Amino acid sequence: MTERVVLAYSGGLDTSVAIGWIAEETGAEVVAVAVDVGQGGEDLESIRKRALACGAVEAVVADARDEYADEYCLPALQAGALYMDRYPLVSALSRPLIVRHLAEAAKYHGATTVAHGCTGKGNDQVRFEVGIGALAPDLQVIAPVRDYAWTREKAIAWAEERDLPIDVNKRSPYSIDQNVWGRAVETGFLEDIWNAPIEDVYEYTADPAQPREADEVVITFERGVPIAIDGTKVTMLQAIQEMNQRAGAQGVGRLDMVEDRLVGIKSREIYEAPGAIALMTAHEELENVTLERDLARFKRQVAQRWSELVYDGLWFSPLKNALDSFVLSSQEHVTGDVRMVLHGGRATVTGRRSSQSLYDFNLATYDEGDAFDQSLAKGFVQLWGLPSKIAAKRDLQGDTPPQSRD
Amino acid sequence: MTERVVLAYSGGLDTSVAIGWIAEETGAEVVAVAVDVGQGGEDLESIRKRALACGAVEAVVADARDEYADEYCLPALQAGALYMDRYPLVSALSRPLIVRHLAEAAKYHGATTVAHGCTGKGNDQVRFEVGIGALAPDLQVIAPVRDYAWTREKAIAWAEERDLPIDVNKRSPYSIDQNVWGRAVETGFLEDIWNAPIEDVYEYTADPAQPREADEVVITFERGVPIAIDGTKVTMLQAIQEMNQRAGAQGVGRLDMVEDRLVGIKSREIYEAPGAIALMTAHEELENVTLERDLARFKRQVAQRWSELVYDGLWFSPLKNALDSFVLSSQEHVTGDVRMVLHGGRATVTGRRSSQSLYDFNLATYDEGDAFDQSLAKGFVQLWGLPSKIAAKRDLQGDTPPQSRD
Amino acid sequence: MTERVVLAYSGGLDTSVAIGWIAEETGAEVVAVAVDVGQGGEDLESIRKRALACGAVEAVVADARDEYADEYCLPALQAGALYMDRYPLVSALSRPLIVRHLAEAAKYHGATTVAHGCTGKGNDQVRFEVGIGALAPDLQVIAPVRDYAWTREKAIAWAEERDLPIDVNKRSPYSIDQNVWGRAVETGFLEDIWNAPIEDVYEYTADPAQPREADEVVITFERGVPIAIDGTKVTMLQAIQEMNQRAGAQGVGRLDMVEDRLVGIKSREIYEAPGAIALMTAHEELENVTLERDLARFKRQVAQRWSELVYDGLWFSPLKNALDSFVLSSQEHVTGDVRMVLHGGRATVTGRRSSQSLYDFNLATYDEGDAFDQSLAKGFVQLWGLPSKIAAKRDLQGDTPPQSRD
Amino acid sequence: MTERVVLAYSGGLDTSVAIGWIAEETGAEVVAVAVDVGQGGEDLESIRKRALACGAVEAVVADARDEYADEYCLPALQAGALYMDRYPLVSALSRPLIVRHLAEAAKYHGATTVAHGCTGKGNDQVRFEVGIGALAPDLQVIAPVRDYAWTREKAIAWAEERDLPIDVNKRSPYSIDQNVWGRAVETGFLEDIWNAPIEDVYEYTADPAQPREADEVVITFERGVPIAIDGTKVTMLQAIQEMNQRAGAQGVGRLDMVEDRLVGIKSREIYEAPGAIALMTAHEELENVTLERDLARFKRQVAQRWSELVYDGLWFSPLKNALDSFVLSSQEHVTGDVRMVLHGGRATVTGRRSSQSLYDFNLATYDEGDAFDQSLAKGFVQLWGLPSKIAAKRDLQGDTPPQSRD
Repeated sequence: MTERVVLAYSGGLDTSVAIGWIAEETGAEVVAVAVDVGQGGEDLESIRKRALACGAVEAVVADARDEYADEYCLPALQAGALYMDRYPLVSALSRPLIVRHLAEAAKYHGATTVAHGCTGKGNDQVRFEVGIGALAPDLQVIAPVRDYAWTREKAIAWAEERDLPIDVNKRSPYSIDQNVWGRAVETGFLEDIWNAPIEDVYEYTADPAQPREADEVVITFERGVPIAIDGTKVTMLQAIQEMNQRAGAQGVGRLDMVEDRLVGIKSREIYEAPGAIALMTAHEELENVTLERDLARFKRQVAQRWSELVYDGLWFSPLKNALDSFVLSSQEHVTGDVRMVLHGGRATVTGRRSSQSLYDFNLATYDEGDAFDQSLAKGFVQLWGLPSKIAAKRDLQGDTPPQSRD
Repeated sequence: MTERVVLAYSGGLDTSVAIGWIAEETGAEVVAVAVDVGQGGEDLESIRKRALACGAVEAVVADARDEYADEYCLPALQAGALYMDRYPLVSALSRPLIVRHLAEAAKYHGATTVAHGCTGKGNDQVRFEVGIGALAPDLQVIAPVRDYAWTREKAIAWAEERDLPIDVNKRSPYSIDQNVWGRAVETGFLEDIWNAPIEDVYEYTADPAQPREADEVVITFERGVPIAIDGTKVTMLQAIQEMNQRAGAQGVGRLDMVEDRLVGIKSREIYEAPGAIALMTAHEELENVTLERDLARFKRQVAQRWSELVYDGLWFSPLKNALDSFVLSSQEHVTGDVRMVLHGGRATVTGRRSSQSLYDFNLATYDEGDAFDQSLAKGFVQLWGLPSKIAAKRDLQGDTPPQSRD
Repeated sequence: MTERVVLAYSGGLDTSVAIGWIAEETGAEVVAVAVDVGQGGEDLESIRKRALACGAVEAVVADARDEYADEYCLPALQAGALYMDRYPLVSALSRPLIVRHLAEAAKYHGATTVAHGCTGKGNDQVRFEVGIGALAPDLQVIAPVRDYAWTREKAIAWAEERDLPIDVNKRSPYSIDQNVWGRAVETGFLEDIWNAPIEDVYEYTADPAQPREADEVVITFERGVPIAIDGTKVTMLQAIQEMNQRAGAQGVGRLDMVEDRLVGIKSREIYEAPGAIALMTAHEELENVTLERDLARFKRQVAQRWSELVYDGLWFSPLKNALDSFVLSSQEHVTGDVRMVLHGGRATVTGRRSSQSLYDFNLATYDEGDAFDQSLAKGFVQLWGLPSKIAAKRDLQGDTPPQSRD
Repeated sequence: MTERVVLAYSGGLDTSVAIGWIAEETGAEVVAVAVDVGQGGEDLESIRKRALACGAVEAVVADARDEYADEYCLPALQAGALYMDRYPLVSALSRPLIVRHLAEAAKYHGATTVAHGCTGKGNDQVRFEVGIGALAPDLQVIAPVRDYAWTREKAIAWAEERDLPIDVNKRSPYSIDQNVWGRAVETGFLEDIWNAPIEDVYEYTADPAQPREADEVVITFERGVPIAIDGTKVTMLQAIQEMNQRAGAQGVGRLDMVEDRLVGIKSREIYEAPGAIALMTAHEELENVTLERDLARFKRQVAQRWSELVYDGLWFSPLKNALDSFVLSSQEHVTGDVRMVLHGGRATVTGRRSSQSLYDFNLATYDEGDAFDQSLAKGFVQLWGLPSKIAAKRDLQGDTPPQSRD
C-alpha cells in the first residue's frame, strides 16, 4: 500500500505547493488537513477544494473554533498565561490543537508521516514536532521548508510550472499568524527594533489614539469561566469574539516586544489580542478579590512556568498536566462580575463584585463598622519581624565568642 | 535624664497632636522628625516650626528626595518590582527611608523610643516596626493610634483644647500617601469595591480620556540606571520628576486594585505612579533586549519575591540583601535607549537600541543575510521533546511487565 | 445552657489539670478529646476514664491511626515533604488531624470554645488555632499555658490539692511528641547546640553503630501509594509500622538539626522517623524512574512550599489544596518496586523496576542495542548554548555602537 | 600556516588515538591539553610524553587542583548544589575548568578548533561545547566519537596499526570519571537498574557495612569557606582531600540513582563523593544556625536552579553569574564550627557553635532565663491565620449575594 503523509494545510502558497512536492519527493499520498481556529479569511470549503486541486488524495477541514476556545484559550485565561509577562501565547496555543487534528487524521487515514511548513528558526516547528511526539510518538515528521531549504521563490516557480490554482502575487510584507485569541506580526521593517510599527501592521485593533466614545462592559465569571457579557450568556468562543470586537474597536491589546525564542535567539514581535487582554484583565482582578493571598502568590509562579512550557512547545507534557490540576483547583471560587471601561487602548477595571469575595468590608473599612481587632497587630508585627531583628542584633554586634552554655 | 521619643512627623493633625500627647502620657521629651520624599505640600521650614509650636524639644527636617530616588526607587526599578504584578510599592519604598532617618535621629538625640502614627490594620505599622527592629533593635516603639485607640475625633478635641496651630477642618475624604514614586488613595466611597473611582481622586495624572497631543520620549539607561531623557543628563530624582510630569500629563500610571495586605485582609487601593510606570515600562523592554533568556526567566521570580518582601516590611533583611546582589549583577548590560510614546494613559515602547543588545539582526531576519543555521534545529527539536515523547510512549502503552534485562 | 469547652486531651499532667482549671475559671463544662495517632503509651480506655475522673463531662477517644496514615502521612510521602530538606513534619502532620476531631466534637457536643495545652513559643499553637479557624471559624480558642502563664509547678500543686489520679512524678527531661510518622525530642541539655545527643534520647531507633545483619526489603508502590512490602499487601498504616520496626531496628531515620520555627526563633530538634525516612527514600527513587524531568524539577519547588505551609500551620488552606492537586496528578505513574537495604543507619536503594519506567535501556545503554541517535546531539547542543554564546560575544566585545540597520 | 586543533587529552586510549586521527582527517596540528583535577592515576609528565609520542605537536599539562577546589568546588559547596537533591555534580564541575584551559591553550597556540572525546548521548558534550561557545565563541568544535561514530574497536585497531604506546588491554567494565570532588561510575551491568552495585564498583569509599571505629571531626568555616579541620588550617583542596580520606574510610558518600540527563534520557549512575558529602553536610547545618529563615528558604530555590544550570552545561552563563552573587551574599555570616561523627556510611552532625549564630538560647529555652514574650503569640497567630480563616468562612457559607454596600 502507498505510504500516506498528513500535511498541515493552510490554503496558502507554501503548503499548496507542498502537497505536490511531497508527493513527488516521497512517492506518498498526501492528506491535507486544515483547521479553523478563527483565523478568518477563506471559507473551509474553498480551502478543501484547493487542496484536492493541488493533488491531495484527501482533504480534511474542521471548524475547531469552539474546541480551541474551550480547551486551549480558556486554560490560558485561567492560568493567567503571559509569556514574559506580556504575550498571551496567541500562536503557541493554536499549535497543539492543530497537532491533535493532524494526529487523529494520521490515524484515521493510515498515514505514517506528518508534514508541516515551519522554518527552522521559529518556535512553531518545536510545537508541531514535540506535540506529534507526545500524541503519536511513532509518526515521522517532515518539514520541507526547513529540511529541504524550500523557499518562496522555489514555491512560486513550482506553482507556475504546474499551473496550480494559487494567487502567487498576494503577499503581505510581514509574516502573520492569527486566530481568535490574537494576531502575531513579524519580519519586514519590524526586524529593525528601533523602527516603530505603523498602523498598517494592525488588523484586529483600531488606532487607540483616535477619539471615540468609551465602552463599558460587565463580564460575569463562574469558576474562572466567562459565562456572560452584560448579562447575556456567552460561550467561551463568543466571549472572545465579542471582546475582540469591542476591545478591538477601542484599540485595546496591542503589544510590541523583543522576545526570547526557544531556539535561542531574540525576535521582535507585534501582537494584537484585544479579546484575550480584556478577558485576562478582568479575570486577574476577579482573582485579586477571590483568591487567598498565599494561593495567589504561588499561582504567579505557576503562571510563569505554564507560559514558558506552552511557549516552548510542551503543551502535551506531564508537567503541563500537573500545573493544570493546580490551576483548576485555584479557580473554584473565581466567580463574580467585573465591570470594565474599554477606551483609548485601555481596558480598565472599575468595579468587581462576588458572592465568593474575600474582600470583607467590615474588616477593611476605617469607617463605622470596623471589625478588625487592632490589638492583635502588635504581637503579629513583633514576631513577623523577629528573624530579621535577631539577624540585625547579630550583624551589629561584630564578632563575639561562640555561644556555648558551659 | 529625661527619656526621649523620636516621632515620625508629617505636619498633619494626628502627628502634631501626638507630640503633646506622648509627652504628657510618657513624661518623655519628643523629637519630631519630618522627611521630604517628594510628597509635595508644605515646605520643611513650616513643618519644623509647627513641630516646635506643638511642643517638640527638637524638630529635625530633611530633604531626602535624592536619597529616596537613588537608594529606594532605583533598586525597585531595577528589580522590576510590582507587587501583585501591578503595584510599584509607592508607600512600601518610603517607609524604610523614614525608618533610617528615625533610627539616626534616635541615636543622635539619645532617644530610647520611636513613635509612629500608623493604625493597626495597615502595612505601614509593620514596615516601621520591623524596620526599626532591623536597624536599631534596642529601640522601643509606640503607636498611639493603634495601641491607645487614638481617633481623629479625640485628636481634634485635644488640638482645640490646647489651641494648637493646626487647621482641623482641612480633611480629605480619602486616606492618602504620596511621594515622588507615586500616590496611594484609599477609604471613603472606594471601600465599596463596585464603585468606580472619580476624577476627584487623582492628582498626579490628568484624565487619560481627554484628547491631547502625544508625547514622544527617549530614555537612556546605563547599567539599569536612567541617565538621560531626550539626550539630557538626569539624576534618578530628575528622571522620576520629569516622567511624573510628562507621563502624568498623559494620564499614564493609574491603578485600581484589590490587594492583599500583610495583616491578612484585602483592601481596595487607587494608585497613581506616572513616572514609576513609564520608567519601569522602558526598563523592562530594555531588559528584553539585553538580558539572556534564562537570566530573564529567573529574574521574574526574584522580582516577585523582592516585591513581596518589601511590601511585607522586610526591606532591611538578609534575603533582601541577597536578592539585591542578584539584581545588581543582572543590570550589568542593561544599557541603551528606549523610545516611548506617552498618550491617552498609555506608555508604549516603539523602539530600542543598545550596544549591549542580544537581539542579533542577522540571526533573527528572514531576509537576506540570515546567519541562522536551520539544519541545527532538527536535532534540537528531537532532543528537546525526547522526555515528553518517552513519557507519551509509556502513557499510551498501558501496563506492561517491568523492564529488567534478564 | 452551660457553655462547653472541648479540650485537646493527652492523658498527661497538664491537660488533666486543665480539665478542672478550665471548668473553674470559665464556668464551662469540659469535653475531653483524645486521639490515637500511633503515639503508643496508655490504652484509650484508661485515658478516657482519667478524663472523667478529672472532671470532664464527656470524654471522647478515637483510634485515628488509619485516618492519620491515609490522609496525612500519605500526602506527605507523595509530596516528598521534608521541611528544610530534612524534617518529615512529624508533629506538623498530626495537628490538623487532631484539629479536625476537636472541631467535630465541638459541633457534636455543642461547644463554643476549643482549648489546647501549647505554649506561646512553639509551632503547635499556630497549627491548632489556624486549623480551628479554617474548619470552624466561629469557635473561640483558649490556651491556658500560654494565655494564663500556667506552669508545670502550678499544675502539680493543683493536682495534689485536688487529689487527681495523675502520677506527678513521671517526667522526662525532654519535651517529646510522637506518633506513627515519627518522634520529636527537644529541650533539656539539647538546648546547648554544641552538645551531642545521647542514646537515652532515642526510642524509635536502635543505635546505628551497633553491628548487626542487614535487612533487605522490597516496597511496592501503586500510583505513589505503598501497597506491599516483600510481596505482602499492606495498608498505609501497616507500611509505616513495619518500616518503623525494620528500619528502626537498623538505626535508620535519626535527625539532629537547628530549625526555623514559624514564631521567628531557631530551635534545636532531634527526630526519629525510621518508617517515614525509609518510605520517602524508596518513593523518591521510584519518582526518579517514573517522573518526566520537567515535572520532577518543578515538583521540588512544590515539595518545598508544601512543607513550609504544613510546618507553618496552613494544612487547611487554599494553597495547600491546590498543591495537593498538583501532587496527585504527579503520582499517576509512580508505580513499581524499590529494593532497599536497611543497615547501620542507612536506607540504601539497590534496585528499582517499574512497568511505568521512563528509563529506557535501549536509549541509555552504551552496549549493543543502543537506539539513541547521536547525530541529533550536535544541533541540540548548538541551540541549547546559543543564548549564552550570543551573550558571550556581546560581553567579550566591549562597547560598540548600537545595532540599528540604517 | 597549518591549522591547529586543541584536544582535551586524558592519556587514555580514545584521546591518544584521536591525536593522530584528527591530524590525518583534518590535516591540522594537534595540541594535547591534559588537566589534573585530582583524578589520580598517572603523573602529568607521563601523560605529556605519551601525547607527544602519539603525534601531538605540543602537549600542555596543568596541575589545576587548587584552581578546581577554589573556583569550582567551593562555589558548589556554598550554593548547596545537589542535582536532583542528591548528586554533588562531580563531573559537571570539572568540565568548565577544562574548557577554560582548552580555550586558553587555543588562544596561546593559535588554534581555531577544539576537540573532545565525548559521546553524543551524555551531558559532557554539552558542557564542553556550550562552555567553549561562552568563553571563545569563534572556536570550532569537533567531537570524533560523536560526529564520526568512532568506536573503541576502531580505536584499538588504529592504535595497533600504528604501534602507539598505549595499553589497549587495560579496560574497566565501567565508564568512569573522577576528580577530587568525587567519582562517577556507569554502564556495564549497572545499566539494568534492578541490579545492585557490587563492592568492585567503588574506589573512593570503604564498605560502610564493615565494623570500624568512628571518626570525629570538627570543621571550621569562615564566610562559607572551610578553613580548618580539627583546628589545623587547610586550603579548600586540602579540606576536600582530608575529608575524602577520612569520610571515605568510613564509607560515607555513596550514591546510586537514576538521573535525568540533559539530552532527554534517564541514566543510572553510581557516585562516590565522601569529601563533598561530608563538607556539604557540615556546611548545611552551619547555615541552619546562621542564615535567617527567609534567606534560607529562598536559597533552596537558588540551589536547585544553580544545580540544574551547572548540570546542564551552563556554568559560563549570565544566570549562573547572578546566582553566584546571591550565594556569595548569603555566605557573609556562615562562620563557625561543626562537629561531625563519620561512621558506617553516615556523616552525622553532633554539634555546632558560631559567633554568628542566630540560635538564641534565651529565646529558645523552656528553662530559666526564657526571654521570649509569649503574650505576643496570640496576635501573631490570629493574623497569620486570618487569610485562611476568611477563606474558610467564604467556603463554608455556600453561595450568597454579592457584597455591595448599597
